[in-house]
Amino acid sequence: MDANPILAEVVRGNWVENRYRGAYAVVDADGQIIASGGDIERAIFPRSAIKSMQALPIFARHAEDRFHHSEAELALACASHHGEADHVNTASGLLSRIGLSAQDLECGAHQPTNAAARDALRDAGLEPSALHNNCSGKHSGMLSVALAMGVPTAGYVGREHPVQKSVRAAVEAMIGEPLTEGKCGTDGCSIPTFAAPLRAFAYGFARMSTGKGIAPEYATAAQRLFDAATSHPHLVAGTGHADTLIMQAFKGRVMQKVGAEGVECGAIRDKGWGYAIKCDDGSIPASQAMLAGVLLAYADPDAEQRAVLEQYAHQTIRSVRGADIGVLRVTDAIKA
Amino acid sequence: MDANPILAEVVRGNWVENRYRGAYAVVDADGQIIASGGDIERAIFPRSAIKSMQALPIFARHAEDRFHHSEAELALACASHHGEADHVNTASGLLSRIGLSAQDLECGAHQPTNAAARDALRDAGLEPSALHNNCSGKHSGMLSVALAMGVPTAGYVGREHPVQKSVRAAVEAMIGEPLTEGKCGTDGCSIPTFAAPLRAFAYGFARMSTGKGIAPEYATAAQRLFDAATSHPHLVAGTGHADTLIMQAFKGRVMQKVGAEGVECGAIRDKGWGYAIKCDDGSIPASQAMLAGVLLAYADPDAEQRAVLEQYAHQTIRSVRGADIGVLRVTDAIKA
Repeated sequence: MDANPILAEVVRGNWVENRYRGAYAVVDADGQIIASGGDIERAIFPRSAIKSMQALPIFARHAEDRFHHSEAELALACASHHGEADHVNTASGLLSRIGLSAQDLECGAHQPTNAAARDALRDAGLEPSALHNNCSGKHSGMLSVALAMGVPTAGYVGREHPVQKSVRAAVEAMIGEPLTEGKCGTDGCSIPTFAAPLRAFAYGFARMSTGKGIAPEYATAAQRLFDAATSHPHLVAGTGHADTLIMQAFKGRVMQKVGAEGVECGAIRDKGWGYAIKCDDGSIPASQAMLAGVLLAYADPDAEQRAVLEQYAHQTIRSVRGADIGVLRVTDAIKA
Repeated sequence: MDANPILAEVVRGNWVENRYRGAYAVVDADGQIIASGGDIERAIFPRSAIKSMQALPIFARHAEDRFHHSEAELALACASHHGEADHVNTASGLLSRIGLSAQDLECGAHQPTNAAARDALRDAGLEPSALHNNCSGKHSGMLSVALAMGVPTAGYVGREHPVQKSVRAAVEAMIGEPLTEGKCGTDGCSIPTFAAPLRAFAYGFARMSTGKGIAPEYATAAQRLFDAATSHPHLVAGTGHADTLIMQAFKGRVMQKVGAEGVECGAIRDKGWGYAIKCDDGSIPASQAMLAGVLLAYADPDAEQRAVLEQYAHQTIRSVRGADIGVLRVTDAIKA
């Protein structure tokens, strides 16, 4: 297997310390490659970067018709949230409205990603619940789909459960590739994750962004989900996170979502382009540098947007005492 | 630049998710390469992996003659410790004996690496001090060198300070390579770090392990430091850390030290071999998998040692609910 190019690097003092290889693709809704680097046909696990695709059955299976999901609930379905108050409250609000509770979530409990939320829980003597799991919005949405489909909610995370089959069908419809048992694993939140070519995820986001080439119900759903996410950037990630800051700065023009192990997916909506990035070794700071490089090169940022992106394209490394001693930066392998 | 080989990988379900490239060298005290993979002449920053080399001036500059460092204090000088009670107490004990305090440390303060120690500080309403910095043992040792040399302690972290010049000279004497301003940066704890060929660090550890080819005062010092580290593995890292567990299992046969950004250095003492490993992207879990692969292949582990190493050679990845869903593992590119 050929090595992917070095898309990001750490420079300490005057010498390169780390190298991060990866692949990226910017694709339009016709499948034309606008830009790419590395092996974009290699199958990668998209992980949480495609939560907006995994949320499509909320519409396609008519859960939204029945439960009238709020825009905040739709944004949270697309989120890897940080367990802050608005995240937890939005998830628990949907669950109680559909007659369920945190007990029905099968994602497991973990500490809030947000440090202040973690400390607040600890100071209150409380353990985190499944509501604090970064995936609780996605899982709450999946539970609403189970109810709308009239199938048991228990076991909704299983590969053969009707909810996960509808999720798989929705993703396949977006990316135009089959998802197979031969390239399948389990995500940290217990649902299936299927590997597919990097290029196909970029293509899927372009199609969701434009509605082109996909069934009308998916096209409408995709617009609603992208509008929800870009209108509520804090709900999609949390305080200080790149996805939140980037979506805030782009004011609806960019839908952006990180996935575990160095995946970044999204759409430059006004251009109708989707993009997908995978850092080979799974580093998130490095994938964020790559993401910033892609958006600097292809999303026509204004000055404010450029300033946000530059924080990730060139991440200052500081000593414990706060001195500037190096940089994690995108390489020239990504440029317009 | 040719890509280094893939030395570790993550497999999720039935598909490779992440790939970690790197280089490794096992070298004897004559400089003969016992085993290697990747570009071992590429200069890497050794970071904290060579703290035992950086501690040599404690002997070469006669600080030990004057202050009679305990074996625990010598072990802590080689450590990236976790801020647990024995670590903090050992550092503060040396400082008070030499008439200094935490105020004289120039490494900066950070939270203890150990979670229980971090929580205990927080529950007591205390902020961490420089004693909790993982490098406080090394810095306390450096302060003792400054006193023994009769130079000002203030500014001892500076590149031109006599302490750092003596550290640089000691490292050069071990690795047999010049350390130059052209490949230099600042470590997180504010002291200089110089990049040099990976192979040379393995060679230096072989020479420290055997005393072969180095000045007698360095040879004696190296034995004292390696004995101290391998006799007090908890002081060199902390509860549950690979370095501590590996050195405990090998009962003096292996000196092992991690460095930030995916560096592992050490010696298989009974064979007189040194080794050095660098994960290109800086991942520590991946460098630990590579380390385990090297020691499984070249350190003749017994059953107990093999069991400890296997935990790092094949690191189980679990879902939030605790299911076994994947593995971070060393590849066949490292084998005897």
